[in-house]
Amino acid sequence: MRILGVDPGSRAAGWALVTFAPAPALEAAGVLRPPAGLDFAGRLRFLRDGLAAVLRERRPDAACVERVFAGVNPQSLITLGAARGVLVLALAEAGVPVAEVTPAEVKRAVTGTGAAGKEQVRRMVTALLGRRLPFDASDAAAAALAHGFVVAPRGAVRRPPGGSSGAPRSWKRRPSG
Amino acid sequence: MRILGVDPGSRAAGWALVTFAPAPALEAAGVLRPPAGLDFAGRLRFLRDGLAAVLRERRPDAACVERVFAGVNPQSLITLGAARGVLVLALAEAGVPVAEVTPAEVKRAVTGTGAAGKEQVRRMVTALLGRRLPFDASDAAAAALAHGFVVAPRGAVRRPPGGSSGAPRSWKRRPSG
Repeated sequence: MRILGVDPGSRAAGWALVTFAPAPALEAAGVLRPPAGLDFAGRLRFLRDGLAAVLRERRPDAACVERVFAGVNPQSLITLGAARGVLVLALAEAGVPVAEVTPAEVKRAVTGTGAAGKEQVRRMVTALLGRRLPFDASDAAAAALAHGFVVAPRGAVRRPPGGSSGAPRSWKRRPSG
Repeated sequence: MRILGVDPGSRAAGWALVTFAPAPALEAAGVLRPPAGLDFAGRLRFLRDGLAAVLRERRPDAACVERVFAGVNPQSLITLGAARGVLVLALAEAGVPVAEVTPAEVKRAVTGTGAAGKEQVRRMVTALLGRRLPFDASDAAAAALAHGFVVAPRGAVRRPPGGSSGAPRSWKRRPSG
């Protein structure tokens, strides 16, 4: 199972491809950064084309994008929503099933608590994948990990050998290699 | 000058093509409504494909989309932002320049006051175009009218014969036929 996590943003969108066999391992990751001179429409096009290229090259089995519930202000939510929308569109056009996870699900999946801070999440992503990633790619990897630990066990895609709870405990019980 | 106004929404997105010669006239309008059974990614794809089909058929000179500054809640802003994003993407992919207007600019352009209510805006759109449109298409037409009255006179696209202020007064001075 190869899961692409995507962390949307209009200035930088992270992606990370995590394989579960069943232990998680990082296959590839990157950050899509629209050039500074582009207008809003141009940035959206850059993001969509960039992710489409990643999808053509990597062909993941499924994708996971974090839901967003809060933001600095309405305008930033609209802009973030637009970036998120064109990335989800690129996934749909490539025929990749898209799952959504809540921020709390992501935090709980990788740290064991939905109240974890950003740095704690990043530390666990680094520990689980054996590599420290840039922030946007790390957040994308956290979404991919949440998919493997929570969404897939929930039955949406695949049921892991360890059980159906999908809680962090279940992956701790998996063989590590 | 043929301007496409677009009113984004994930459940219904209105569009209206208004010609300025220089008096405004409605060429065509419609509402894109994703079927109820579609998931979020499917709705985004429906909207983008629907607008792309309109653009292939109608080939407008420019497009105008209202900015959004407020919403019921963060989740609805994210969803609206996504719909707006894939529609702006479709415009960019078709090579149509996209202008943005504020809600106050739209209201001022068609009613003379930025504090107008929704029904007042719709009444003026009906009066200016000689046809009562469904709500989403009427809001799209209002954005197109604002483009013709405000954005184009501002110099972004074209300067009308009457002057450069772009205030509602300037279109009132234009010949009506």
